Amino acid sequence: MNMLNERDPFFPAQLESLYPAYEGERTFRFAEPPDHFFLESGVPLGPVTINYQTYGRLSSAGNNAIYIAHALTGGSLVGEPPRPEKERGWWEPLVGPGRAFDTDRYFVICSNLLGGCYGTTGPSSLDPKRGQHYGMNFPVVTIKDMVRAQKRLLDHLGVKELVAAAGGSMGGMQALEWAAMYPHMVGSAIAVACSGRFSPIGIAFNQAARRAIMSDPAWQKGRYYGRDFPHEGLSLARIIATITYRSNESFERRFGRALQRAAETHPFAFFEPFAVESYLDHQGEKLTRRFDPNTYLYLSKAMDLHDLGRGCTSFEGALRRIRSKVFLMGISSDILFYPREVRGLGVEMRRCGVDARYEELQSPHGHDAFLIEFQQMENYIRSCLDEVENQ
Amino acid sequence: MNMLNERDPFFPAQLESLYPAYEGERTFRFAEPPDHFFLESGVPLGPVTINYQTYGRLSSAGNNAIYIAHALTGGSLVGEPPRPEKERGWWEPLVGPGRAFDTDRYFVICSNLLGGCYGTTGPSSLDPKRGQHYGMNFPVVTIKDMVRAQKRLLDHLGVKELVAAAGGSMGGMQALEWAAMYPHMVGSAIAVACSGRFSPIGIAFNQAARRAIMSDPAWQKGRYYGRDFPHEGLSLARIIATITYRSNESFERRFGRALQRAAETHPFAFFEPFAVESYLDHQGEKLTRRFDPNTYLYLSKAMDLHDLGRGCTSFEGALRRIRSKVFLMGISSDILFYPREVRGLGVEMRRCGVDARYEELQSPHGHDAFLIEFQQMENYIRSCLDEVENQ
Repeated sequence: MNMLNERDPFFPAQLESLYPAYEGERTFRFAEPPDHFFLESGVPLGPVTINYQTYGRLSSAGNNAIYIAHALTGGSLVGEPPRPEKERGWWEPLVGPGRAFDTDRYFVICSNLLGGCYGTTGPSSLDPKRGQHYGMNFPVVTIKDMVRAQKRLLDHLGVKELVAAAGGSMGGMQALEWAAMYPHMVGSAIAVACSGRFSPIGIAFNQAARRAIMSDPAWQKGRYYGRDFPHEGLSLARIIATITYRSNESFERRFGRALQRAAETHPFAFFEPFAVESYLDHQGEKLTRRFDPNTYLYLSKAMDLHDLGRGCTSFEGALRRIRSKVFLMGISSDILFYPREVRGLGVEMRRCGVDARYEELQSPHGHDAFLIEFQQMENYIRSCLDEVENQ
Repeated sequence: MNMLNERDPFFPAQLESLYPAYEGERTFRFAEPPDHFFLESGVPLGPVTINYQTYGRLSSAGNNAIYIAHALTGGSLVGEPPRPEKERGWWEPLVGPGRAFDTDRYFVICSNLLGGCYGTTGPSSLDPKRGQHYGMNFPVVTIKDMVRAQKRLLDHLGVKELVAAAGGSMGGMQALEWAAMYPHMVGSAIAVACSGRFSPIGIAFNQAARRAIMSDPAWQKGRYYGRDFPHEGLSLARIIATITYRSNESFERRFGRALQRAAETHPFAFFEPFAVESYLDHQGEKLTRRFDPNTYLYLSKAMDLHDLGRGCTSFEGALRRIRSKVFLMGISSDILFYPREVRGLGVEMRRCGVDARYEELQSPHGHDAFLIEFQQMENYIRSCLDEVENQ
């Protein structure tokens, strides 16, 4: 089903190595024909493959599980890889025996989200009906769809209760949807640097990134599989996004106004880059070696559509459904999800009767601090889980 | 010299109407061969044409002049057009008889900046040596070069002293350079929403915009004159920039999360735009009807290179040269020039002995508030000029 596992010869060479087949890698497949997985839009999708990783053991009562949701370009490898690999999980310092998400106590699950390109069904997957890659024929998926697919996986694994649903950025959006959509199953949501509905400026930055991809002549309306890869478009999309993941303070500390090759040239050459430009070019280049452009389009669209209130009577109505504790964390220098926005969500939640707590991570690194400031994250997550266990 | 005035048949049709020949429009030409205008880089340029507008009358002592500098995509039309036109000047509510820049008292000059595409020599001009448009053969110009060219214009007009050099954004950068480069000629600098040296995050956003232009296959390394216009690239550059000129609060107020065609469709269509997306698409489209992409590259590069301290012993050394009053204004919601950055420049200036004052414009509209919040701007400018006159 998913060409990344199957080493589809038509998949761009750039992406072949992005998803090494870990021994511990597992997939769950559902909605086999004639069954379907109906999306929030009403569109049927199937079959659906979910790529996932687990850490620790599920208790016999099925009530010691924690679901961790990844962000836009992440994957299911959240902790240590099943066998020693160069690549570490994206929250590896937080997941493992004795760590904040203590796998001696908890059964931790992370899956590549619906629409992804790391083993879960998405636009780069083969559409069995057409016998070719979905591309832009893939239906729009939402954060709610992702969470519903994750629920199917957890049912399959025998999980009855979640001690916590956790994540940062787009992962935090999923954690909040878990609390709103499955109030009786979820003990807590730990949501870092995210919001209850995506902001218009966030939509705007995503629009610019998508337009960069779709402007690349190689994009070919999404039919680039087996042809030229829209390298420039995806690079530029990543550059735009990376600026919003950092902050001027972090760029000041790291690069300032230094030129990349200060001693060799004078600053008046048009193509003489500042160090910050070289850094961003490199970040753009890096993503093209590991990510599918159509997936970028669909997952950023899912972010744009993120709104806890859709399908409920109102946004407040969605908040009032929540029964679990909600632990919110804003990042002091975040320019994509302003800390005041995250704090404001906490205020709104408490007004709706939710047991919501807000804390602010102090960091100069901007939005990406949730992937950098592990000590502060660890302290917060430990205190959250203590609070859930001791209630 | 400049094809926009001369209706060069090779210039893209999009741009033909961008610069209607006002009756009051004037040009000044200097650095005629064998003379040259030597740029900060040491590269000679010439001849140089400066397109400018003036308002009011110069006193016989030549000491009642105010120079107003425009921002990235502006032109010399700052006040009322010489004859009734649809287009108004970009600071028209501030410039005129009895207005903040009172043309009954002051002789106001505004010129299209060096490197521009509205009548002043820039990359879209014909290079007389090669007999074709400069394109990427145009030399890198800096804010200091722009100010030095403006000084040549003012000498030509008989201006001996400037009561003020004023501007917002890139115009503010020029105002500050006026104070630092010609300390004995300038009575005050009124600089809104700008900095003493451009920030790394500002460079980063400009890099993304430039890359959008240069990624457009129609850009052709700058040789698009008379051929396909890099429409998509310039649109995307403008979209990226416009996001940074606004703020989430302004987008929230105006668009929120509304869809462009709310009633007609459901939100799950991939290409169904949010209202904020349609707005930005429109802004991108609009610029392509009035601006030259190579000019965008060069002027944004000049912003990146903006550093009052370059060529001085240090940044502090440049500030210590200033003899004039400096009136700084930050904008509360600006995400391109954070108000704390502008305020910080004021602190640094006072530490260097400069008579610097800081005020904050309160607005939800972000960076572009300097083109929107005319009442607050007027109050501030009036108080600044009063202070200069009454010293």
